Amino acid sequence: MKQQVKIGMLGLGTVGSGVVQVFRENGEELEKRTGLPIHIKSIVVRDLEKERLVDVPTELLTTDAQAVVNDPDIDIIVEVMGGIEGTKDLLLTAFRNRKSVVTANKDLIAEHGDELTFAATENGCDFLYEASVGGGIPIIRPLRKDLAGNRINEVMGIVNGTTNFILTRMSQLGVSFEDALKEAQELGYAEANPASDVEGWDAGRKIAIVASLAFNSRVNFPDVDVEGITSITSTDIEHAKQLGYAIKLIGSAQEKDTGKISAQVFPALVPLAHPLASVNGAYNAIFVRGNAIGEAMFLGLGAGQLPTASAVVGDIVEAVRNFHAGTRGKFLVDCYAKKEVQSALENHHQFYLRLEVADKAGVLAAIAGTMGEHGVSIETMFQKWAYNQTAEIVVITHKVREGDMRDALNELGDMEQVKAIRQTLRVVN
Amino acid sequence: MKQQVKIGMLGLGTVGSGVVQVFRENGEELEKRTGLPIHIKSIVVRDLEKERLVDVPTELLTTDAQAVVNDPDIDIIVEVMGGIEGTKDLLLTAFRNRKSVVTANKDLIAEHGDELTFAATENGCDFLYEASVGGGIPIIRPLRKDLAGNRINEVMGIVNGTTNFILTRMSQLGVSFEDALKEAQELGYAEANPASDVEGWDAGRKIAIVASLAFNSRVNFPDVDVEGITSITSTDIEHAKQLGYAIKLIGSAQEKDTGKISAQVFPALVPLAHPLASVNGAYNAIFVRGNAIGEAMFLGLGAGQLPTASAVVGDIVEAVRNFHAGTRGKFLVDCYAKKEVQSALENHHQFYLRLEVADKAGVLAAIAGTMGEHGVSIETMFQKWAYNQTAEIVVITHKVREGDMRDALNELGDMEQVKAIRQTLRVVN
Repeated sequence: MKQQVKIGMLGLGTVGSGVVQVFRENGEELEKRTGLPIHIKSIVVRDLEKERLVDVPTELLTTDAQAVVNDPDIDIIVEVMGGIEGTKDLLLTAFRNRKSVVTANKDLIAEHGDELTFAATENGCDFLYEASVGGGIPIIRPLRKDLAGNRINEVMGIVNGTTNFILTRMSQLGVSFEDALKEAQELGYAEANPASDVEGWDAGRKIAIVASLAFNSRVNFPDVDVEGITSITSTDIEHAKQLGYAIKLIGSAQEKDTGKISAQVFPALVPLAHPLASVNGAYNAIFVRGNAIGEAMFLGLGAGQLPTASAVVGDIVEAVRNFHAGTRGKFLVDCYAKKEVQSALENHHQFYLRLEVADKAGVLAAIAGTMGEHGVSIETMFQKWAYNQTAEIVVITHKVREGDMRDALNELGDMEQVKAIRQTLRVVN
Repeated sequence: MKQQVKIGMLGLGTVGSGVVQVFRENGEELEKRTGLPIHIKSIVVRDLEKERLVDVPTELLTTDAQAVVNDPDIDIIVEVMGGIEGTKDLLLTAFRNRKSVVTANKDLIAEHGDELTFAATENGCDFLYEASVGGGIPIIRPLRKDLAGNRINEVMGIVNGTTNFILTRMSQLGVSFEDALKEAQELGYAEANPASDVEGWDAGRKIAIVASLAFNSRVNFPDVDVEGITSITSTDIEHAKQLGYAIKLIGSAQEKDTGKISAQVFPALVPLAHPLASVNGAYNAIFVRGNAIGEAMFLGLGAGQLPTASAVVGDIVEAVRNFHAGTRGKFLVDCYAKKEVQSALENHHQFYLRLEVADKAGVLAAIAGTMGEHGVSIETMFQKWAYNQTAEIVVITHKVREGDMRDALNELGDMEQVKAIRQTLRVVN
């Protein structure tokens, strides 16, 4: 039996520093909880001279990632440096060397989850990635274990803290998307290049990961239909508020009665009484619906140094316990099924539309008629303002097939009376 | 390696029937997720003739619990019959026979958790009880695993669905405690003898269980300071609403900076903006605060046939996976520390008081003076009504030591100007 466990870390950025800090503060407890002393032996960094968020003995630092994943003395690789192809190769080498891997890298899993899982299983190693979704919030392990008695039919929620912060500030202060983004960047919530967050890609990757575990069938990032929040204006937020809704970036994955999977990310109107409407700032919240549990919600900080480190260290604890008990590399068969991912066009949603139309008699009737021809029936339709022969109208539809809605939108766009389709958003109930 | 796993169930009431139903509906998935076929071999019932909530082949039923826990053919005992001493003896026999045990029995664990855990460890068996707290909501496994990187300093929330239903109905309809209890009984949410729920004992047992796991030190039911909801009147609910609060039965366990543990259950005023204030009906919600994760909340149905069965079957999946991998009975050292449980008198809370006092000049000053002598300072104090020389006043204090508050209350009770202390509730922030 092992006398201690040695960790090689790839990366010492925000999350990596958090991991070091948690070991420093809780190390004694961690040894009691795992039965083994845990030592960080090496930390791979790009620049040995750079100032760090935590004090680390310089002899731990190295720029040689290959040496670390090939070091026979190291038992567990903790990957918190990001990156896809190069990082994948390093982790595959780690698995070949029979090291367990803990990672927070959602981009990597959402693209190469199957290949990495297969390599871990082949080599009898653990491959754990709780931190890849929802920061510190437990969601990966609950899907794999706590909810394993269920047939899960939906996972849905707010899985990106940056966009949630931006939308929260737009709603609180009435500022534009651009101003809220700038504030998020100043506070370190958004990166200099914010595309991954604001275009919904980050949320899409997380939804791919949880969908794979919920439905036991691999969903990759390209399978997810993704729409970001860059088109959201303070006008939309204001209209939504008046109608009794908040606007949130929602990730949603469902297994349909047909056995097909749907996975989407989109900004949506959420009723103010819905628990997600009051999830603000950097918080994430994820609903899981299953045929036994009914529904459960998991809420917490979806990002940040220590919350994410909490999930990483929780995974390290599991990996170390498995070393202690000699039980590594068991039960990785998450995706034993092969289910088809259906086009988002087949999903049914309510829609919110904001149009600028000619301000004259018969226009509303013409618009309703065009939509009706595509099977889109209207729940609410009203005029917000009229000025200079133009009127702004807001439409909320009944639940319709998304493909029919898109067809209707195409035809609306061609109508002479419709001057502009300013916004199209889904409505969540 | 085993070819299949056989289950012996003790009990076929609400939860037991739910477990059978989940196996019937999800059995194929469960086999894929565990790697082994799972068969229910025997079900112990008290009355072979009684009509059941699910159809079960009569040859599975038996009244002989001893035969089942001694059956060498059975691998896992699923205990869903309740009871304490007799049930404990059955489970100890099961452990001696090297069977893993899954149970939903909070009463048993809150009284004999250490003895059962010790027996399981001694015999290399699994002892799993996710269903004992929060129905289907994952909380036991998250405390043991997902949050194992944290030093947890607080677990707090709504852990009893029956009282939450009663308080919700009192608030929604303005009815009395008695009427809301009657409705709960008619709907099957409360038992004919509701004491365990309405006196707070059920919540107290659950808090004992989660405190033991959160702080790694055994907390038993008698260690928990428990107060129920029987004294709550519609007047209190109405006053609370006007002040911007809901009244909820709160369970709370904390590890203080001193290293001592406090565990309490009490009805409390919760600000309407607090996430717990909108947890209504049969829902439960549990906050966990730790030094890495910050805070996380888990929400879902805290009781009911299928939600509770979801947790039981999740545990069965883990037990079966461990049979499959030959990894049973690992990592049961939850309570490796011995921390002192401090008296509730040492806790600090804000308090809400409702008093009937003599309606004359100087009374408020006298009351404030008496409280001040005990170090209880007042945040808000106002008169609700005056009639027939009596005035009702409501007081909200600043945060004070509970012992000081109780001393102040004793002295208030002796004051001539105080006709009655109608209510004393804590305020949660």
